[in-house]
Order: sequence, then C-alpha cells, then structure tokens
Amino acid sequence: MPQLHAFILAGGRGERFWPLSTFARPKQFCALFGGTPLLAQAVGRLRGLVPEANIRVITSADLVPATRAALPGLPAANVIGEPVGRDTAAAVALACGIVSREDPAGVALVLPADPLIADEDAYRDALRLAAEQAARAPVIATVGIAPTFPATGYGYIEAAETLVPGVRRVRRFVEKPDLETAKRYLATGAFAWNAGMFVWRADTMAAAFRAHAPQWLPLIERPEGLEALYPTLPKLSVDYAIMEKSDNLVVVRGDFGWDDVGSLPALARHFPADAQGNVAISPVYALDAAGNIVAAEGVARPTALLGVEGLIVVHTAKATLVCAKAAAQDLKRLVATLPPELR
Amino acid sequence: MPQLHAFILAGGRGERFWPLSTFARPKQFCALFGGTPLLAQAVGRLRGLVPEANIRVITSADLVPATRAALPGLPAANVIGEPVGRDTAAAVALACGIVSREDPAGVALVLPADPLIADEDAYRDALRLAAEQAARAPVIATVGIAPTFPATGYGYIEAAETLVPGVRRVRRFVEKPDLETAKRYLATGAFAWNAGMFVWRADTMAAAFRAHAPQWLPLIERPEGLEALYPTLPKLSVDYAIMEKSDNLVVVRGDFGWDDVGSLPALARHFPADAQGNVAISPVYALDAAGNIVAAEGVARPTALLGVEGLIVVHTAKATLVCAKAAAQDLKRLVATLPPELR
Repeated sequence: MPQLHAFILAGGRGERFWPLSTFARPKQFCALFGGTPLLAQAVGRLRGLVPEANIRVITSADLVPATRAALPGLPAANVIGEPVGRDTAAAVALACGIVSREDPAGVALVLPADPLIADEDAYRDALRLAAEQAARAPVIATVGIAPTFPATGYGYIEAAETLVPGVRRVRRFVEKPDLETAKRYLATGAFAWNAGMFVWRADTMAAAFRAHAPQWLPLIERPEGLEALYPTLPKLSVDYAIMEKSDNLVVVRGDFGWDDVGSLPALARHFPADAQGNVAISPVYALDAAGNIVAAEGVARPTALLGVEGLIVVHTAKATLVCAKAAAQDLKRLVATLPPELR
Repeated sequence: MPQLHAFILAGGRGERFWPLSTFARPKQFCALFGGTPLLAQAVGRLRGLVPEANIRVITSADLVPATRAALPGLPAANVIGEPVGRDTAAAVALACGIVSREDPAGVALVLPADPLIADEDAYRDALRLAAEQAARAPVIATVGIAPTFPATGYGYIEAAETLVPGVRRVRRFVEKPDLETAKRYLATGAFAWNAGMFVWRADTMAAAFRAHAPQWLPLIERPEGLEALYPTLPKLSVDYAIMEKSDNLVVVRGDFGWDDVGSLPALARHFPADAQGNVAISPVYALDAAGNIVAAEGVARPTALLGVEGLIVVHTAKATLVCAKAAAQDLKRLVATLPPELR
C-alpha cells in the first residue's frame, strides 16, 4: 500500500447554519458536537489511516490563522489558503499538484471538513478499501453513503456491477432528485449519497483533468503563483468538472452514521428530545412548548420557552436567531440581509 | 395648602415582566423606557409638587440597597424596607404612622412605583387637586384613570355626583369586570380605572383604619419593631381593607397617558412598529416575520427573526424568553418552574 495523503476541504461558509456559523467562523469551527470543532474531528478521525504530516487542510486564505489555531497538532504549512473560493475542482487540482510532486505513487483522499461520523472505525475501513482500489488501478474511488431516507438534498451515485467485495463500478452521478425519484433510488439499493469523498492516485487524477478539465492543469503543473492563477479559474465543483464525465469511477458503500448537518433542523437529530419533542442543546425551561430546538455556543444564558411550537432558537455571542423550522431553508436569504459584521 | 408627603410603593415583584424583571430586580428598576428606571421616573415626576425630603419609597427589605442605588438623590432614610411583603394595606398604615408623627396636618400621596405617565404636568395637576380635597375635608381622594378601552385587567371606580369641578364623590370600587361589563362601564362615562393612587390626611386615614381595619393600628401607632409586627399582619390590599368599605372617598379623573405596562405585550404600545407589525425595542433583523415584539436589556446582541409570527422575545444578561403573545398571561406559571437564581 502506498502512502496516503489527506486533503480536507474546509472552504465552506455555512450560511444555513447561521449564527452558529458566520463568514469569519464557518461551520467547521463549530464545537457543538462533542466539544471539539468539526474540523478537528475531521482530522482526528484519520488517525491510524493517514500520517499526520500528510494531512492538509485547504481553506480560504482569510481562514488560515483560525484553521491553524483549531488544529494545533498540524504543521502550519499543512494549512493551505486559497486566494479566492473556486469550489472543489480547483481544490482537487491543487491537491493533485502537491501529491504529484511530493509522492507521485501516493494516494490522495479528498474529504469534506464538516460531516459528523458516528462510527469512525467503519469510516476508516471504507476509506482504506477505497484507497486500495485507487492504488492498484487508474480509478477514482468514492465513498458513497448508504442512504437512510429518500433525501432530496443530496446528489446520488448509482452503482453498477461489483468489482471486488464491497466495491462496485459507478454507473453515473445524478443530481439532487425530487422525492418520488429519491424513493425509487432508495428502493433499488444501488444508489448512495454523494458525500464529496474521493480517493485517487495523482497520475489518475491528473489524467482526468487532462481529459475533461484542462483549464485546471496549470494548478496541477505549477503550484506557485496561486494569487494570480486562482481568479482565472472557473468556479465549479469537481463533480461537474470531472466525476460526471469520467468512466473510471468505483464506489465503496459507506455505512458509518454520516450526517452533513446541513441545516439547523438537522442538528436536532443528534441530541435527545424531551417528551414534548423539544431538543435542548443548551439549557432550556419550557412550558406549553413543543417541537422546538434550542442551541447556544459561547453563551451561557438559558432560554425559556412559553407557548411556542416548531421554533429554532440559536444564541451566539454575536446574535440570536428565532426561526420557524419550516422557514429554515430561507436562512441564507435572511443572512444576505444582515450587515457584514453579523454575517 | 399643607405640606405634601409622597410614599411610592415599590414592593412588587413583576413576574409578568420576566426576564426584564426578576425577583432580585423587579420591574421598577427596568430602564427600558427613556433610559432611567421606572422608579426614578416615579420620583422625578413629583418634582415641583412634593419636596424631595418628603418623598419616601416603601419596598422589601432585601431591595433597600438597590432602591437607594437607583435613587441617589433621595436621603437613604427615605427608603423604607418592609421585613415581609404584606400588600398595600400594611404599607399605607406604615405611611400613615410616619405622617401622623412627623406632620399631623400634612397630606400623604400613596403612589405605585412603575406606571408610565406621558403627561407629567397633567399628572401633577390631578394629584394637586386630589391633595386639595384631602387637605380641606376628611376624605380619601383617589386619582382614577380615564379609561381608553374596556380593560378587564383593572378594578374600576364608579363616580357619583360632582363635588367641585373635576372632583366627584366615589359611589363604589368594583373588581376587574368581564368584557361586557367593562364595555358598559366605559359607555357610562362614570367609571375610571383604579390605579392605586390615594391621597389623604393622616387623621383621615387613621380614622379609616380604626373603623374598618383595626388590625393594622399597631403599625400606625408604634412604628418601631417592624420585624416582629409585620409577620402578624394580614396580606391584604388597601382597596379591600379600607377603600371598598369607606364612604368618604372622592375621585379626580386623570387623563395623562397612564400605562401600568402590566405585561410584556403592553410594552409594544410604547414603541413604533415596522410595516409588518414587528416592534423592535432592541436591534432586530426580520424576514417573513410579523407581529413580533423583541426587547433586550443589558444585552447588545441583535435578534434575527425568520418566518415567525406573534412572538415575544426578551433578552437579558440572565436569560432569554421566547413566548407566544397569546401565552403571555401564563408567564407567572413559567417563572414558578424556574430555579431560584433565574427568577
């Protein structure tokens, strides 16, 4: 097995998580779950799989200091700042360039910064299996999440025939489906959620860029001068730029309690509810209140609920949000109306 | 005109105003309106009517230090602590004893600590007229508030014939009516709200206690030993103990923008609303939100509202309340469930 190199993509801004996440302190820094930032959890759960010296975080240039502070165990040079956000295609090309030069036979894992993963052993096993595939053949391996409900908020990966136990060829990547389609996907057993986890050898990925996305090749071939190069790149996901066009993809089905906690209502799934369905992630006193979610970070004050239903209440040192659960999908729209210092 | 002596009754705990008011910091200390505590406003608006040396505040013993701090201009001895709360009958008897000894010909005004009064000149005029009546005859004068809507939350005073311009004999005190009765009261023009403002000469009030409420006479006759005396007294309002039984009452009709701000929804009347009916007493950013009230004291953070309607949100350094307007009358019940340090 060649050496593994992990690239954690931590460039998101997490507006659907406001005010727990803000522009200057995105979701990956939130410590609501288990007391450590999601980003530190993402690094920590690679222990035993990827040597710490080989774990890099790709984030926005402005977040480099906060990212280094959140990851004191990581060499400072392993936190890489992108001068402007250009979505995941650029980040993957950047990673490809680094591995190409440093360890051409190495295998890279590209992983998101902020999902929750309940069973870390199963997670590492899935990544290890994916890495073995990528090491032995010119394939891009992905870990698709075994779906637990007909989600309409994720893209799906359709699996074809089994190649080795636990590994199937990818038939296609599909966009977020409507509910009926999602139910059909779930029933077939062949579909998994695309969680943005990709595993590849540098030469395989470079070839993929050469074939499908040559605009990004400069980023692979000469990694200096990012400031000048980045703004010239299209803002595109690696899914669009590479994955949907490639026929050398394999998928490992992952079943390890994954949750991207993509919105505030999703928070509630990870905490117990009282008899009235209120989820108290921070201290709550409730009377005649049902189905509410209350969370706080950096604020010790309790919340009292009286006669209210289906609300999300979130306190931070910066602001308080009171939001109807049903309106949570509009949070981005609300955040857009806020003054910059509150976003 | 004899000298005037004012007694501001500031013993309330204001649970219907929580968390703006708490047990240790009741409503009279709130500075939401005009930046000074309600209690300081109550003292300040007597300027020109009652010499400051004659203004006393009767409060709970435990609130004496906070009351003195809120009223730096007042002699410390003028803040009097009751060892236990015994409602207004005891406080009025205490006041009666003080005036009896100090200035037997003087006229006392008993006034609540926490109403808002918009037109202070008209307020002083009404009190002056009441004081003139009490000075010249053995009557208990009261200032009844000209009702602006058929309130069911106040007792009423029914006026009989006019004695002198602006002053009528009191026919009776009546309890909080139901809505239909309140509408009838309003239509007659003879009813005013009982706002707990009473004006009397010491000998008149002492005679009233002798006739109707002799249990309180020890408090009038020997003001030392309050600690032993107070717990033996009934917990009763002066309305029940004296006013409802007396036939020497006169009423001055007061029309000076009075509001006792008896509940959180009442707050909203004193602040402008946006086009969606949201009242922002502290900074608010709202999207798809209507008819909400947001207030904060001692907390600078803004509140964002998304997709919510008819809520009251109140922040203090101690707690946050999120309450349906329709449930505000249950606030006392919620407060009763809180740990002592939050009440």
